[in-house]
This record gives sequence, structure tokens and C-alpha cells, in this order.
Amino acid sequence: MMDLKIFDRMESEVRGYVRSFPVIFKQARGSVLIDEDNKEYIDFFSGAGTLNYGHNNPILKSKLIEYLDTDGLVHGLDMATSAKKYFLETVDRVLFKPRKWQYTLQFTGPTGTNAVEAALKLARQVKGRQNIISFTHGFHGVSGGSLAVTANSKFRNAAGVALGNTSFMPFDGYFGPDANTMDYLERMLDDSSSGIDHPAAVIVETVQGEGGVNVATWRWLKDLEKLCRQHDMLLIVDDIQVGCGRTGSFFSFESAGIQPDIITLSKSLSGFGLPMSLVLIKPELDIWKPGAHSGTFRGNNLAFVTAAQALESYWRDGAFANDTRRKERLVRDWLENLVHSYPMAGMSVRGRGLIQGLVTPGDDDIAARIAKKAFEHGVVIETSGANDEVLKVLPALTIEDDLLLRGLEIIERSVGEVLAGKGVSAHVLKFGGQAR
Amino acid sequence: MMDLKIFDRMESEVRGYVRSFPVIFKQARGSVLIDEDNKEYIDFFSGAGTLNYGHNNPILKSKLIEYLDTDGLVHGLDMATSAKKYFLETVDRVLFKPRKWQYTLQFTGPTGTNAVEAALKLARQVKGRQNIISFTHGFHGVSGGSLAVTANSKFRNAAGVALGNTSFMPFDGYFGPDANTMDYLERMLDDSSSGIDHPAAVIVETVQGEGGVNVATWRWLKDLEKLCRQHDMLLIVDDIQVGCGRTGSFFSFESAGIQPDIITLSKSLSGFGLPMSLVLIKPELDIWKPGAHSGTFRGNNLAFVTAAQALESYWRDGAFANDTRRKERLVRDWLENLVHSYPMAGMSVRGRGLIQGLVTPGDDDIAARIAKKAFEHGVVIETSGANDEVLKVLPALTIEDDLLLRGLEIIERSVGEVLAGKGVSAHVLKFGGQAR
Amino acid sequence: MMDLKIFDRMESEVRGYVRSFPVIFKQARGSVLIDEDNKEYIDFFSGAGTLNYGHNNPILKSKLIEYLDTDGLVHGLDMATSAKKYFLETVDRVLFKPRKWQYTLQFTGPTGTNAVEAALKLARQVKGRQNIISFTHGFHGVSGGSLAVTANSKFRNAAGVALGNTSFMPFDGYFGPDANTMDYLERMLDDSSSGIDHPAAVIVETVQGEGGVNVATWRWLKDLEKLCRQHDMLLIVDDIQVGCGRTGSFFSFESAGIQPDIITLSKSLSGFGLPMSLVLIKPELDIWKPGAHSGTFRGNNLAFVTAAQALESYWRDGAFANDTRRKERLVRDWLENLVHSYPMAGMSVRGRGLIQGLVTPGDDDIAARIAKKAFEHGVVIETSGANDEVLKVLPALTIEDDLLLRGLEIIERSVGEVLAGKGVSAHVLKFGGQAR
Amino acid sequence: MMDLKIFDRMESEVRGYVRSFPVIFKQARGSVLIDEDNKEYIDFFSGAGTLNYGHNNPILKSKLIEYLDTDGLVHGLDMATSAKKYFLETVDRVLFKPRKWQYTLQFTGPTGTNAVEAALKLARQVKGRQNIISFTHGFHGVSGGSLAVTANSKFRNAAGVALGNTSFMPFDGYFGPDANTMDYLERMLDDSSSGIDHPAAVIVETVQGEGGVNVATWRWLKDLEKLCRQHDMLLIVDDIQVGCGRTGSFFSFESAGIQPDIITLSKSLSGFGLPMSLVLIKPELDIWKPGAHSGTFRGNNLAFVTAAQALESYWRDGAFANDTRRKERLVRDWLENLVHSYPMAGMSVRGRGLIQGLVTPGDDDIAARIAKKAFEHGVVIETSGANDEVLKVLPALTIEDDLLLRGLEIIERSVGEVLAGKGVSAHVLKFGGQAR
Repeated sequence: MMDLKIFDRMESEVRGYVRSFPVIFKQARGSVLIDEDNKEYIDFFSGAGTLNYGHNNPILKSKLIEYLDTDGLVHGLDMATSAKKYFLETVDRVLFKPRKWQYTLQFTGPTGTNAVEAALKLARQVKGRQNIISFTHGFHGVSGGSLAVTANSKFRNAAGVALGNTSFMPFDGYFGPDANTMDYLERMLDDSSSGIDHPAAVIVETVQGEGGVNVATWRWLKDLEKLCRQHDMLLIVDDIQVGCGRTGSFFSFESAGIQPDIITLSKSLSGFGLPMSLVLIKPELDIWKPGAHSGTFRGNNLAFVTAAQALESYWRDGAFANDTRRKERLVRDWLENLVHSYPMAGMSVRGRGLIQGLVTPGDDDIAARIAKKAFEHGVVIETSGANDEVLKVLPALTIEDDLLLRGLEIIERSVGEVLAGKGVSAHVLKFGGQAR
Repeated sequence: MMDLKIFDRMESEVRGYVRSFPVIFKQARGSVLIDEDNKEYIDFFSGAGTLNYGHNNPILKSKLIEYLDTDGLVHGLDMATSAKKYFLETVDRVLFKPRKWQYTLQFTGPTGTNAVEAALKLARQVKGRQNIISFTHGFHGVSGGSLAVTANSKFRNAAGVALGNTSFMPFDGYFGPDANTMDYLERMLDDSSSGIDHPAAVIVETVQGEGGVNVATWRWLKDLEKLCRQHDMLLIVDDIQVGCGRTGSFFSFESAGIQPDIITLSKSLSGFGLPMSLVLIKPELDIWKPGAHSGTFRGNNLAFVTAAQALESYWRDGAFANDTRRKERLVRDWLENLVHSYPMAGMSVRGRGLIQGLVTPGDDDIAARIAKKAFEHGVVIETSGANDEVLKVLPALTIEDDLLLRGLEIIERSVGEVLAGKGVSAHVLKFGGQAR
Repeated sequence: MMDLKIFDRMESEVRGYVRSFPVIFKQARGSVLIDEDNKEYIDFFSGAGTLNYGHNNPILKSKLIEYLDTDGLVHGLDMATSAKKYFLETVDRVLFKPRKWQYTLQFTGPTGTNAVEAALKLARQVKGRQNIISFTHGFHGVSGGSLAVTANSKFRNAAGVALGNTSFMPFDGYFGPDANTMDYLERMLDDSSSGIDHPAAVIVETVQGEGGVNVATWRWLKDLEKLCRQHDMLLIVDDIQVGCGRTGSFFSFESAGIQPDIITLSKSLSGFGLPMSLVLIKPELDIWKPGAHSGTFRGNNLAFVTAAQALESYWRDGAFANDTRRKERLVRDWLENLVHSYPMAGMSVRGRGLIQGLVTPGDDDIAARIAKKAFEHGVVIETSGANDEVLKVLPALTIEDDLLLRGLEIIERSVGEVLAGKGVSAHVLKFGGQAR
Repeated sequence: MMDLKIFDRMESEVRGYVRSFPVIFKQARGSVLIDEDNKEYIDFFSGAGTLNYGHNNPILKSKLIEYLDTDGLVHGLDMATSAKKYFLETVDRVLFKPRKWQYTLQFTGPTGTNAVEAALKLARQVKGRQNIISFTHGFHGVSGGSLAVTANSKFRNAAGVALGNTSFMPFDGYFGPDANTMDYLERMLDDSSSGIDHPAAVIVETVQGEGGVNVATWRWLKDLEKLCRQHDMLLIVDDIQVGCGRTGSFFSFESAGIQPDIITLSKSLSGFGLPMSLVLIKPELDIWKPGAHSGTFRGNNLAFVTAAQALESYWRDGAFANDTRRKERLVRDWLENLVHSYPMAGMSVRGRGLIQGLVTPGDDDIAARIAKKAFEHGVVIETSGANDEVLKVLPALTIEDDLLLRGLEIIERSVGEVLAGKGVSAHVLKFGGQAR
């Protein structure tokens, strides 16, 4: 066991992941993490969605070092820099032009929550109202404004103040497949005596990453957009975790055919794990006054360099997205097989693109125990959901197929070990077939 | 004039500094910025206090590139990494041991405001109360929680919601030299019918950077600490802008002999302009529950590398602090001379260490016009204060003397030009002396 | 038409009922109102539930005048008075002893909303939490605290501030007969990531008077109580409008077999239309500090006199309750007949005891037009519901049968006239029967 | 001792005055209260300012009984009634016409706090802002909205929620005679970085009754009105306790020559101790929507009857006001003599009209002990102030001179006894004079 004493002694009790993965990582390449004992781990976690292009992606790294070598500006607030100019041009060329989109870009403090804060402020200013619709199991950050629209009580209770100006509504599927939760929201908005104050906006994730890999259907998202139009509310898509290609297309909502008023991006935006955030705003809504939302690290130019390069390298055509969808099928197939192998275990699969959740019944910490086992066997993987009942498979989009398969095999083995401990064994297919 | 069209077209109206400095910077070394026309500028702004060791500090840069070359972990959430371990050891050895301090470290999202959010949450949890005392002209960030304790209406009005759980009190000197504002606060707290709900904590900057370079005296800070003890409130020092050596010692409050319960650090913490933030917590107050405050970019390991190296290189002994104080005297002397040269202009100087403000009467945008002139002459400098009436001299602590003097000469020249335009000329000393 | 000019000129635009009933009333006896032209009106409104024993009830009036004649204390704050003592004894003897109940009594400012304010404060103090569950279409008053738990946007929007610390949940039947809204609430409370902060209490009306005569079933109320116990929340029944015998028994929830932690009473409590309010508190929850909730008119001793006498005269045995139920059947029968007479009109009936609603489809202001017609024909009656779609039949419990029938006939006639105007005629029963 | 057991057993712990005056009052006439043992007490408390015309004022009572005898409407919501019409006419004739004033009248729920709630709502609607300026030691009621602008922590802490949208400012004299607190407020409002959000309105009492009989000077009130105009804020005078003639003129602010935008009245408005409240609104500000602020007991017609008669009987000319001022001098003189008699006791006097406070040093509960002694000797009197350090002399304006003098003598005797117990004796005037 590695010596983690200094972390125990010096770091606040608030530390979390170091408890799940009690080793000291020293290096990382692509989808492999290496600890101080030179043990290697396959990364099925990707920095909670921040490392879609893997660790130390060599294309991005060479650009980064090149920039450093020439003494490019590192820290630029929101001054104009060559790196930022190039990033803007690249966004326009790679993302907007092909989609015929027009958005203005707000560079916020380089954390997702800062982007959400800005989005909520702008929406409230635009509509002159205070209430925001957010959803059960939604996660949007833990600073004051974002925390109010975040559902998890673990985070909410830490605020020490009441969190208001938000009405939580059931996310798609919250009451099972038979209840259309959009009807609920519609009823509440149509009814002037529902107690729900007219909202300025709705904020939604198309796939709730932290909330348990809950997937909104395209139909539900379309209906949500329609409801926003009917009730004069802005539609904010928080694409921080599942944007930047995680679900296949660069933006997670493209297949839904909706056009959000405001989009928040962060995590994999820089492509290299560097802090960076962005708010995309429909130009007609950009009523910001100069300097009314500030932030010291808005101009993290190293991130601009790698972000632009990531767009260049991966998003000029559809090849990368197609490859992600191919891997999605591979992962999905494997997980569904796994579910079928243990029919008594009550598991299921859900997800979109390369965020896939293996849903366990939620008792006995099964998912957490699977993750723990997997870590022992060399896979870094995390759980999500209100009760950590979902094993979240979140590999880099660039992961090599053999690593991906090895990782999945370890998951399978770990599931087997944990379920065996519970007396559940794999189902052997009867008719001459072979269990996986 | 450089082509800034793409910024105008693609960036949100919220952009600010690009309007003050309408050029595109491509490189920066030490205290020199270079734009795309190869024009050089002396940096008296330092990324709003983020670049205490200058741009692309070579010592830090070489460590950074070395780390990248070996594929060290870039993004680590709050997992243990070799870089983080080394940073913890260095903090302990360089900062805590010599001072005989004990604090636990909370790594928050890498923006100042995220650190403030965490500090406020913790204080409220510890005391089980919601109210926080903050001060006129205080600035602590613009996310929901921090914004509530930030005084400036430009930022507050953008919230779109009412900001509560805060009581603003007059900062030291707010009513001029004759009124002791601590008496006011004390009266309000002693009086159970003042309307001020019992606060969980006080949050204070020892020098208000954004608020106009307002300096709290040591006496006032001591009295504030005493009041905190008497009224069972935590003392939070927000050292984000004036910590990390800006005022001479590493922490800005050391000469006051006070011991804050919670300290927030950011800006120059990484030393290289990389986003990083930290909350220091008295161990007995560290009642955080694991994972109750999260953040994707808490583990910006590149920043840990440069931060540790900055501590190693500049803070193992008192030499750097002494040099800062030497430069303080130089700047201060120059500015006071300038004030005396224009006795009719109603200017004054205030500051501590290498954050010095030239205070103008506030009418006619004099400070802004001086800054504009200075920029034309090759100095990047900003204003602060509620009405931007203070020219804020904020050079890197590492600035070479000749650059510092050249910058000051440009300031002097710019002041002269602006005042001449107003019909104020320099005072020629009578008795054989010579006006500067 | 009477001269109402002085009301138009001097009263604020906020005035309401004077617009619905544009005459000047000078006298009232029992269920008859008399205007300045000596026109008589049957009262099917009862001061919005305040006059359960009719206007100027002679038994109560003689007690009142007797008290005034002897110079009994009129205004007593919360000092002890003979009238208050007698009221306390009577409550104990008539209400508590037979039910084997124990509650302590808090006399608040003599408006329903003040009682609700006190109830909410106490619940929050007891549980140390801020959130309260309230229901769609609920009405609890319009002062700051009560307004936050009131659903109607007409009232909420007038606040001028955001109203928080409340989560609205669907009332019984909100989504029609097939959806059990208690499941919804349960799911939200069971789920730590629903975004619903752990509530201190639930506040509920068993029949929502203002909200449209929505009736909670006993089963739903029982389940609600159970949920309160499971989730450590207090159960507050707001019995201001439908308590004091309106639904048959003195308290509206008795048949449900539930035991609320806190009960609010007002409206018909004094029995004579005099302002009076009361909060009943389970003794073990009475953690109030002396004087922590005050109010100038808490000691409206005239109201104590009539309130005690009302209990004496009407509630010592079950006769009055039985008579109310008899009248309920009469009204209900009549209204259901009316509904069946116009099968094409899409009307229905709901209610409990002598609060019965004739529900119209909600378009074309039908209910309002019926009420207007009825007023022309000599019945004072009001509408309720979010869109005023429910004609609310709310006669005094003491109404004489012939007046009741005359009133119902006028309602029937008014319905007929309004529907005829819409081209809907009464259905003539085919098989030899006779249409009403 | 009277048997108060039933109060102890059945009333909530929140009860207050019954603890100070532990007897059961059965009757009251003018300024005399009579308990169940037939002991008589001189009333220097007047129902906390509710009984300016004494208990059971015979003129008002005869009108009241006459009204009841004819079955006048008792409870009228906001329907037009003969009694209300007459009240409106009387207000117009007696109060408005002579002053050439124009205000519209809003009848709210009949408690002071309901009137304040309405005033605050309207101000916020008119200005579209949420913040309200209120003052140290101010008291405006304990329902949600009013409580937020009430200073006393005893009440605030009972809320169980954070109270916001208010900024407390120092009342006149808060920092002693040398500091002009209006300068403070002005500075805070002028400074866009003070942290004080632009207020919709200021709410102020001209004499703070509950807060310790703190008197605002005319100059200060004039300056406050001016500041309101400069900063586009409404001026709300809460005249609930010191209006209706308490300070001499009907409205407490008349001598200041200010014209509030909104005025709240209650307490002595009905003149008979009956619950009634009123908001006076400058017509151009009356943007209320019909029915947007409701209340069951807005139409307490018995109160309208006595209120109109009180205006008729006491306010048609200046005689009553003059008599009040005469009594003011008498009380004031007596109290100042008392202060001078005990020069070592550190007492002082403040007040206006017939609300006069004997201010004690605040230690040892002197004021409370004087009040207790006085009660033993037959005077009902209360204390006020944050620490109950002020003995509040608040007789009926109609008190007979001999009762007034007898009461003052008892006060003097009680002061003497309490101070003697502390070893302070009356100062005997040297020069042949005689100590009182």
C-alpha cells in the first residue's frame, strides 16, 4: 500500500476520490494511469468526463509545449490574445459554420459551475424573473447559484443556507416508462395556481451523468423545448459532462433537433484536462453589460490552444463521432450481455454514446463493490446516482479497442466476483450456447 | 490598429479588458507583454494579481515542461498524485512549519470564487447560522454565494435574484480617518435589536484590490479578530488578490498578528497564471463530509507543479519578501512625489507592498484617462474602486528595477498629459529645487 | 343602482368583492343580507366561511352585548381576562375532553394568516429546517410567510420578492382519479436527489376552499400523516376555512382519524364574524419562547365571548353536526340533479359538508356568470378555483331549510339562464319522468 | 393570588403579558382596569397604544351597541356596507380635507403587521426592486414580510428561516447626539459599491415604541424624505403605534412637514380596541390589481363604526390634540423631575406626546423592577427597548388628570423603592427647596 499519510494529515475531510482510489498516480498516457508502484490502470473514468481524448494526448501536448516554448501568453483574463483569436476562429469554422449556428461566446471562470452561474444570471436578466426549472437528479455544480439547481442533498445540505428560486421537476423516466413527466411539468406551468412561479428558464442535462446516467429521450427534449417556447422560458442545456463528443456528436442534443438558447460547456472542452468553460448564447439574448460577470482565469490560454487543436483534430469531419458510436455499440453490447448473464441480479443498462451505466438494484452497495473490485483488478471506474447504484462506464473516446475490451473483461470479472459473494451465479445458456 | 473584429463578433458583450487594451497579445516574458505588431508593453497589471512572478517565469516553466515531458498527470480531480503530494509537502515545509501553523487544505474548483464559496459554506455549517459580515467595497467573486458578499452593484445587479444572508459593514476608513468603523460593527453586534442577525463569520480582504486599494490597518484587523472571538464568529481572510507575497509577506495579514480561521488563496498561487485555488482551514473546524463540495478541476496538477516550485524558489527565506518591500518603497516614493507635484489635483496614494493606488478625485474619469494614456505609451495598467477612481499599480514582484522605473516614468508622463488637458500643471518647487 | 362612488374614489384598486356585489349592505340577519334599498339577499357565501352560524346570531349577540354592558375588557393583548379564561375552559370541556385531546393554545393576531405564520415558525424551530411542503391550489394567507405556501400566482406575484422555503406538491386528485399524488410526494421525499430539501412540515387543507373546493380523501390524508411520521415532518392542518363545523364535525379531519401536530383555526372561530385566530399545538412541540411571536389584537375578548358561546350552543353534542350533514345531502342532491339536467354542460359536483362546488368546464367564465345572475336574483355566492371555474355553495350551517331551498332554486334558475345563453338546454328525462 | 392555572396549562409558552401582570382582568373603564378580586389598576399601557381613548369609551360603545341592535353587518370582507361608507366619508371630511391630502385607502387584514405587509408589497411592485431600508430597533410586526424589517432578534430568531431583502440602518441618535446617522445612510446609498442594493422604499416609525421610545427629530425625518426623493425610494411611515393622536396630532409626522408615500395605521384606529388596519397610499402609486391582497377580516364593520365615531368625537378640531400636548408637558415635567431627583441613577427621559420613556442604565433590570413594583401599587405599565431598559409611559389620551397624577406618583414611589434597594436615594434640593 502506498503511503497516503500526508493526504490524510493535510487534506480536508472533504476529499473524496482519493478514498476510492487509494494510490498515488504519477503518470498517465491515453487510457492508462500509472501509480508510484508502476502499477497500470485502465481509465474508465476519464476525469469524470474531462478526458475525452485521453491523458496527455500527444497531438494536444505537442501544441501546448510549442506554445509554452514561444512564451505565448498563459494568463490573459479576457484580453485578446493570439491563442484566443485562433480558438474563436476554430469554433466558428469547425462547430458553427457546418451547423449554420450563431451563438456568442462567454468565457467564464474555467469551471463548469462558473459557466452555469453565468447562464442562470443571464436567463434571469433576460426574462426579469427569478425562478428556474431544474430536474430531479440534476447536477450543475456546487457554487451558490448552481447548487440551487443541483438536486443531490449531499451537496445541498452543505450550503448552510436555504437554496431558492428553483422548482424541481421530474426528469424523463423518473416515474418509470409509463408516466410522461413532461405532462407533469406542463400541467404545473399551465396552472396559475400550481405554486410554481413563472420560470425564467429551464436547465437540463440530456444525460444526467452524476445523477445516475439517466437519459432523456429525444421526444422528451423536443417537448421540453416546445414547452419553453409556449411559456416564454429560455432553454439552457448544460452540456458540461456529456457535450464535447461524449454521446457521439459534439453537442449531446443534436439528434433531438432542438436549439437551446444557452449552452454551457466545460470538462473536455480544452481536451487536455485544462480548466476551461464556455457559455454559448443566442446573440439576441446577449444583454450582458461589459464586465458584469468577471473571473480571474477566464483567459486560460493554454486551454485555448489545446481546445482549438482538439476541434481541429477530431471534429472537422464525422469520423470521430462515428468511431465513438461504434465503441458505444461495443460497450453497450457487452454490458447488456452481462445483464443477461445474471438474470436474477436485477441489473440493467442505460446510457448514450460512451457514457453507459450498469444499473444495480441499489442495495448492498453492489455498484460500489464492483468498482472497488475493478480497481483491484486494474480499472479505474466510478459509480453515480443518488445512492451510487450505477456503475458508470466512461472511457476516453480515443481508447484503443483492446484496452476497452480488457477493461470490460475486468468489469465482467468484478461483477462476477461481487455477485458470487451474494450467491448469484451467471446464467448458463441452456440450448447449446455458451455463457460469456 | 489590430483586427479585433472576431472578438467583437463572436464574444459576448460581457467582455471587458479587451475593451481597455484593444490589441492582440501574442507573447509575454516577465513583465513585458508583446502584441501581434511586436509592440512591447510593461505590465503593471499582472493579470489582476495573478502573475506575481511574471509571465512565463523560466524557473516555473522549465518545471512545467519537464512534468509534461514525463506524462505526469494533468487532471486528477482529488485523486492522489505525485505532484499533489509534493505540493502538500512543500506547503508544510515552506509555509506552515516556519510559522508553526496548522491548517488543513481544501482544494476547490480552481477559481477564487469557488474557494470563497467553500469557505462560506464551511463557516455556516460550523456555526449553524446563515448570516455573514462583509464589507463595503469588498470583492469576493461573482458566483451565487460569493456574489452575495461582494459589494459592487455592477456585479450584484447582474444576479437577477435577490442576494441575501449578508450584512455589509463599513470597511476601515470608510467614513474617513476620524471614524473608527470597528465601533460601528461592534455596536451592531452588541445590540440584539440592531437587525443584524448573529453572523457565522466575517469575510475580509486586508487590502481591497478591486474595491479601490483600500488598506485595513493592523489595529483594525486585530480588533476585528477580537470581535470575532467575542461574538463567536469565524474570521475568514480572503487573501486571493493580496496573498502570495503581494504585500511583502506570503500572507497579507502576517504583520497584524492575527490568525484567521479560514484563508482563501488563488490567483498567484500557482505562480504561473494557471488556475488553482485553496482553502486553509483550522483543523478543528474541518467538519466537511467527504465529497460534500466537489469540482472537476480541483486537481489541476500542472498548477501544483508550478505552485510548489514557486514556494521553493521564492519563499524558503525572507529575501524575496524583503525585495518586495524595497520595491514598495520605490513605487510609493515615486507616487507620493507625483502627488506632491500636483498639489491642486487632489490626488493621494494608498497601498501596501506592491499594490499601490494613485487615488484621483474621481470626477472626469481621470484615472481611466491616465490608464489609457499609459497604455498608449506602453504600460498596461488598470483602475479600481467603485467609480474607477484609483489607478492601481500592480507590477510583478519579480519586475526588474529598470522596467519598474520606466513604467513609473510613463505613469508620470501620462498623469502630466491628462492633468495638463485639465489645466493643472506640475508644481515647481520654489527653493532652488527641481520638480520631478 | 346604489351610489358606490365614494368606494371607487377612496378605496384602493385592490378592492375585490365590492366589484362582484355592487350594492351597499346595511343589515344582516341569519342568512339574509339587506342592502340600502332594502333588497334582501340569501347568503350562500357566509363571509368566505366566517359566518357558519349566520349573521348577527341572536344567541351570540346577546352574550356580546351583555359583555359590553358590564364593561368587560375588550382589548387584552395576551393578558389574562375572565372572558379568555372562560373560553379556555370551554375549549377544554367541549372540544378536547370528549376527544381526549391535548393541545396547547396559541392566540395569534386575529387573522388566519397570522395563525399560519405562527404555525410555520414553530414547525421550523422544532425541526431546525426551513422547507415546508405545501400543495397545488392551496391557500394559506398573503403575509410573507403564509404567502410562500399559497399557490395562486395572483397573490404570489404581488409579493414583489421571491418566495422560498417551500416545495409545492400535487394535491389529492391533481392529475385525475387514476394518479395517486401521494406516491409522487413519497417518491420525492424518499429520493435524496430529488432536489426537495428535507421539510420541517407539511401544511394542508382537507378541503381547499379558495383553490376550487378540492377534497382530500380520508385515505390520502391518512397516507399523508404516515409519510409525515416516516420522514420526521410535522403535519399542519390549516382548518381556517373548513374547520369550525363546515364539513360536519368541528374539525374537518376527524373522520380521517389523523392527529395533526399543529392545527390553525380562524374565520368562524368567534362565530360572530369577529376577528380571532388560534393555533393548536401538541404540547411536546410547544418550544416557543415567551413573547417570541406577538400581536396587538391577540386578545380580542369580544371574540372570546362569542367563540365560547358558539361552542356551548352548538358543539356540546352531535346534533348540530348531524344537521349539517343532513343539509349537505340536500345541497349535494340538488347540485347533482342540476349536473344531470345538463349532461352536455360538462359540470360536476364536489365538496364535503356545507362547502360544495359546482364545477364548470372553466371556459367562458360560466361560473362567474352564474354567480352574477344569482346575485341579480337575490343570492350572494362566489366562485373559487384557479380560473374561478367553481361555483362555491357556502351557506351558513344554521340556514333555515326554506331559505336554503330558495337559494338553490335561484342557483338552478341562474344556471339555466346562463347555459341557455350558450345554447345548452336542460335534459328532459325520457321515461315518463319530469325534468326538475 | 388569582388562579391562573388554566392559562399555564392550556396556553402556549409564547404567552407574555400574562406573566408580567399575573391577575385576571374582568372589567375596564376609561383608564381603570379591574381584576377578578376587584382590585383596580391605573392603565399606563393602553393595550400597547391601542386604547388611546380609554377602555370601553362610552361614546364609542353606545354607537357600537346601537349598530349591533339594528343588526348592522358585522363581517363584510371588502363588500360595501353602510358602516364602511360612513367611515370613508368621515376620513375624507375629518382627516383629508382639512389637510388637503389625497390618499387611497387599503383595508387589510385587521392587524398592524398585515398593513405593513401590504405596504411593503406595494412599494416593491411600484419600484420593481426587492430591498427595503429599515432601522435599528424598528418594530413592524412578526409575519414573514414585516418580520424581515423588524430589528429585534427575539422575534427574528423565531422565524426559523433567513429574513432577507432588507438593509438595516442606524436610526436617529443611534450613535449618540454627535453622529448624524442620516449621513451614514446617504453615504451607503450614494456609493454603488456599498453592498446595499437599491431599495424600493424606506420604512420608519417617527417614534420607535417597541424599540425603546426612540424619537426621530423633525430634521432627520425631513432629510430622510429628501433622501427618498433623491434615490427614487418610497417613504413608508409606519404610524401604527404612534399615529391616531398618540404624539399630539393625528398623524405623528405632521410637524415634520413630510408627506409619506404610504402610511400604515392600526392599533388605536378603531378607538375601541377592535382589530382594524389601514394603508394610505398616494393615488398615483395605487397599482394594486383587484383582489391581489386579500384578508378575511378586512371588513370588521364594528371597528368601522367606532373608528368613524372616534374621528367625529376627537378630531374635528384641534382641542383634543391640544389637550394631549398639555398632558405631555405634565408627564414630561414629572419624569424629568424624577430624573433630577436621582442624579446618580443615570436615568433620562425621551418621548413625544403621550409616549414617554424613562430610560434607565439598562443593568439590573431596573426598568422591569420598577414596572413590577408599579403593578403591585396599582399601575399597569410596560418596558420597551432591546434590553427592556425603558419604562414606557403610555396612558390613554383621555385619561383624567387626577388618575394621571396618581399614576405618576405611583411610578415615582416605585422608582424610589427600586433605587433604594440599590442604595440610591433621592437628591434633596439644597436651597430651601423640597425634594419631590
